[in-house]
Amino acid sequence: MSFGLDNLPYASVVDQSGRPFAAVRYEDSVLDLAAVDPELFAAGRLDRFLAAGPQAWARVRAAARTRLESGSVELVPLAAVRPVLGFTVADYVDFYASEHHATNAGRIFRPNAEALPPNWKHLPIGYHGRSGSLLASGTPVERPAGIVGPGRFGPSARIDFEAELAFVVGVPGRRIAVGDADAHVFGVCLLNDWSARDVQAFETVPLGPFLGKSFATSVSPWITPLAALDAARRPAPPQDPPPLPHLAGGSGLDIDLEVRVNETVVSRPRFADMYWTYGQMLAHLTSNGAAARTGDVFASGTVSGPEPGQRGCLLELSWNGTEPLAVGDGRRTWLLDGDTVTITAEAGTVTLGEVSGQIQAAP
Amino acid sequence: MSFGLDNLPYASVVDQSGRPFAAVRYEDSVLDLAAVDPELFAAGRLDRFLAAGPQAWARVRAAARTRLESGSVELVPLAAVRPVLGFTVADYVDFYASEHHATNAGRIFRPNAEALPPNWKHLPIGYHGRSGSLLASGTPVERPAGIVGPGRFGPSARIDFEAELAFVVGVPGRRIAVGDADAHVFGVCLLNDWSARDVQAFETVPLGPFLGKSFATSVSPWITPLAALDAARRPAPPQDPPPLPHLAGGSGLDIDLEVRVNETVVSRPRFADMYWTYGQMLAHLTSNGAAARTGDVFASGTVSGPEPGQRGCLLELSWNGTEPLAVGDGRRTWLLDGDTVTITAEAGTVTLGEVSGQIQAAP
Repeated sequence: MSFGLDNLPYASVVDQSGRPFAAVRYEDSVLDLAAVDPELFAAGRLDRFLAAGPQAWARVRAAARTRLESGSVELVPLAAVRPVLGFTVADYVDFYASEHHATNAGRIFRPNAEALPPNWKHLPIGYHGRSGSLLASGTPVERPAGIVGPGRFGPSARIDFEAELAFVVGVPGRRIAVGDADAHVFGVCLLNDWSARDVQAFETVPLGPFLGKSFATSVSPWITPLAALDAARRPAPPQDPPPLPHLAGGSGLDIDLEVRVNETVVSRPRFADMYWTYGQMLAHLTSNGAAARTGDVFASGTVSGPEPGQRGCLLELSWNGTEPLAVGDGRRTWLLDGDTVTITAEAGTVTLGEVSGQIQAAP
Repeated sequence: MSFGLDNLPYASVVDQSGRPFAAVRYEDSVLDLAAVDPELFAAGRLDRFLAAGPQAWARVRAAARTRLESGSVELVPLAAVRPVLGFTVADYVDFYASEHHATNAGRIFRPNAEALPPNWKHLPIGYHGRSGSLLASGTPVERPAGIVGPGRFGPSARIDFEAELAFVVGVPGRRIAVGDADAHVFGVCLLNDWSARDVQAFETVPLGPFLGKSFATSVSPWITPLAALDAARRPAPPQDPPPLPHLAGGSGLDIDLEVRVNETVVSRPRFADMYWTYGQMLAHLTSNGAAARTGDVFASGTVSGPEPGQRGCLLELSWNGTEPLAVGDGRRTWLLDGDTVTITAEAGTVTLGEVSGQIQAAP
């Protein structure tokens, strides 16, 4: 774990007296950003800062770094604050940008057809999720109920996680070019797109996932700025067929994820294995004229790699419940009440804020 | 058209000096609601009022009515203000609740299969749309671009409207019972879910509609409170098979819609022909544990009836572009640049605020 001067992620935190303030994390402490720019962070929230754009982002980052280097600044112990979601989520979109994940899902659900849908390599498939479902890491996740067949309603028996990377939009825009993404995207955070596979299976045709996803989506409240990921940038992955001109380009990110169920590491997906870049996702999202707004979150979809140990959800890891995996002393196809799923990630020397959540029994 | 004392819809309006205020419409005038409750409407917005719940809704409605009846109150001419969307849209969900519409769509897209998807009568199918796409009536709608096939990106050639009724949530809640919907839903407004059918067709499998819908969704800024629709309530429509216990009940609404393309009436759909009730939609939406929030909007999906002249979108009216219809001196399969679509509705003596929008050429 490394939260040094090259990292400095942002969140809102609440101190023991209940006072919220905007903060950067440095090692095991946080710096109150009101000390850097009292106006931009006046409300203890990140919304105005996100909207302020790349120059303000660079200025605040440099100023925070200078103060931390000087050692003359008062810090608050991380253990003395509770991080919360620091901005108002506008729209939430979830993509499906891992070829390995989409291929596995296709093999599972359509064993007699082409694994990838015919449109998959022509556009980054995505859909709108429920903005109100986004919860800060650590918030308990109640087992959802749903309709899993004609006349059958009850607690889902197939709760899954999906390990994803989410991108937080700061600067609004329409028809954003792939190469302009960094003028709009502030940073990234880990996201767990909890899924009720039985609910999802019955509802999803023809309009897509709905209640099988909308009950909870956990995110790390710590947003790692893109500025901290410069060393993790990689050339865009090879794409065949070449994307349409308005979707060409973007950069990959070399980020290694790790997923634990309770104490057991069940997967180590690599974001470098993703097919579509985040620049392509944002360009596609706004290509029809739709506006991206401050606080929009778009997530990558499940991050999966070519190896079985790199699959980012239980759907793939247990091959739709047919191949249980070892978790501690037991085995899992789907999550049990009491299970905690924790996703962590490293981008070289930069650690991302973890996202964790525990399944609670249906009420 | 009737905007009498039994109607009194709400919006935010901006006067000629640029001052916003919350208002009820009475005949051809508006009443500034700051005169009724300065605190609740202080910001000129409806958000706090929506969240305040049924008792506050009833109190404000009665007080506005008393003042209007007294004749001693100062009114502003409707023509002197510009209505705007009066609340912050939280999540936007679109249902698919007309059996006639779903059946026609099935016949068009899956001519060799059952018209209705197998889940259709077991739950009200819905999906999340883009909250940021909601625009007040009168806002021009730019023709969107999109990918309509491998290697093919450009302005959509198949722009459609969908005539819908939208429900605005005031009071938050989870697992809302069908019978409790009126403790949460404040009112209704007409909505046009503009659709780019060619974009939608290529993108929609497997995760549902996305950019084919997210470019624009026009709504009337005038929200008709449910209290004005008491006389329009009807028993829930017959449902076979009977819905699951948690989805049973609700009431229909006898609202007659009319859709004009330019000056030509192209459809007269009746909301009384809908299969699923709005109480069922809200109960389903929150049945998995998801929270409904103040400012959530859920729409019915296209309102279509059994007769050809009651079909609520061009997809059905032109049978996917194969049967042009007369519009003025010309014919239409899909909308042309410059076309204006206007949806109006009457619920007995209560007129709903219209929603209108003109298609502009792609930029």
